[in-house]
Amino acid sequence: MFVPAEDAHAARAWEKPVSLSAIDPRGTPDFSGDKDDAAKELEKERERIAKLQELLYAQNTHAVLVVLQGMDTSGKDGVIRHVFSGVNPQGCHVTSFKKPSEAEADRDYLWRIHAAVPGKGTIGVFNRAHYEDVLVVRVHGLVPAARWQARYAQIVEFERYLTLNHVTVIKCMLHISKDEQLQRLQDRLEDPSKRWKFNPGDIAERARWSEYQAAYGDAINLCSTPSAPWHVIPADRKWYARLAVARLVRRTLEAIDPKPPAINFDPKAIELV
Amino acid sequence: MFVPAEDAHAARAWEKPVSLSAIDPRGTPDFSGDKDDAAKELEKERERIAKLQELLYAQNTHAVLVVLQGMDTSGKDGVIRHVFSGVNPQGCHVTSFKKPSEAEADRDYLWRIHAAVPGKGTIGVFNRAHYEDVLVVRVHGLVPAARWQARYAQIVEFERYLTLNHVTVIKCMLHISKDEQLQRLQDRLEDPSKRWKFNPGDIAERARWSEYQAAYGDAINLCSTPSAPWHVIPADRKWYARLAVARLVRRTLEAIDPKPPAINFDPKAIELV
Repeated sequence: MFVPAEDAHAARAWEKPVSLSAIDPRGTPDFSGDKDDAAKELEKERERIAKLQELLYAQNTHAVLVVLQGMDTSGKDGVIRHVFSGVNPQGCHVTSFKKPSEAEADRDYLWRIHAAVPGKGTIGVFNRAHYEDVLVVRVHGLVPAARWQARYAQIVEFERYLTLNHVTVIKCMLHISKDEQLQRLQDRLEDPSKRWKFNPGDIAERARWSEYQAAYGDAINLCSTPSAPWHVIPADRKWYARLAVARLVRRTLEAIDPKPPAINFDPKAIELV
Repeated sequence: MFVPAEDAHAARAWEKPVSLSAIDPRGTPDFSGDKDDAAKELEKERERIAKLQELLYAQNTHAVLVVLQGMDTSGKDGVIRHVFSGVNPQGCHVTSFKKPSEAEADRDYLWRIHAAVPGKGTIGVFNRAHYEDVLVVRVHGLVPAARWQARYAQIVEFERYLTLNHVTVIKCMLHISKDEQLQRLQDRLEDPSKRWKFNPGDIAERARWSEYQAAYGDAINLCSTPSAPWHVIPADRKWYARLAVARLVRRTLEAIDPKPPAINFDPKAIELV
């Protein structure tokens, strides 16, 4: 199902190429308030999402898939907690894609992705997704270049197929600056309550920052289509990124405009004893 | 992991047999307030559950499995919405077990249940579960009596195995009266916004009320163990049932007492650039 993205912060890569370096990670497009205003608006968005999701569940004909990508510390987990806490967990499934298991690596890269596609009436959230197969896989050369180069077109086809089969796809890249990542990694190291979140392996990834930015740029430009567009969300201000994703989800649900199904019986003919 | 159930409303079937007919569905054991008090306390419980669940997720060594059973309209969906909305959906997975698919029916009855067991660090909620295989299956004689009779011991073994393997099992039977069910079915029929929830098939099940009560009684008495006890939750008052389940979940998480994992690196040796 095609849902037009009307947000100013949606980099319209399907209209003209997006340059990540030209998008300010500290920007707050389409929002003029401060952190507190954003928290209040987020609370309202959450309530609206929860109500719309109930109708989506009742209707049981459409699914929404939110794909979250972004560098380490870009705030993917926080977006999930802040945007989707409050949604009935019966109708919301989060899947975190980590390093493929042996069984997963034995299959094509979309196999485990396809298996996790949300069912009708539900919202699925992917914490990282098949884009890792043109991000980390490309940056580390885990497969020959010809293999990952062929994937962009395959991903476009796969998402087009989902879109034609009741799944509305929302793709968000949480766009942070290298300086902000440094700050967040330092916070994790210094705050004992956050230290467990620190992964020493993130340092090696950080060293390849510009290669990742190039890979993200290609993923966004080569896989953004009107029916499954990429949204580049400035994410140096966490409160803004959360609100921006919430707005996208709410607008998508409004566009689907879910309604309870018609009943297939005559209420007057039912006798209860 | 063994978590002692200290609630008065937990029918201690592992100590002495429980008689469902002796438990008042309108009761509010262990709670003296009214509906508004319960809503306020539920809000507090939810916040505590959300915090504990974050620690459970960070610790990543234990899982909690909440099994919800109860007659149609007993409030299973409402419990899920009211108790678990607010929990980070990244750490909470709800599985609704409906009529088995052909592929599921081709396997043993615990196959699909086992596949849905929550991973470490997460809370799993089963909206109906393997108990249907000694409830609807028994009442409708879907398999020979010897088959379902053998299942009680198998279920005890299966849950014992889970308990020995990092999964704490909380089993709640939402106990409503036949009169209350009539009222709720009538509400669904009369309120156009609820009518889609009405399933004409529920009427035939209602006609077998006493057979179901007998089957529930056996399931509770034969499958209640100290490590995986059944809790019979009076559920004619929805606000009470929600609070009682929330308390059980919160107390279970407190007993697990999750803590962030120790770090396996020296923060001072890390140099960030």
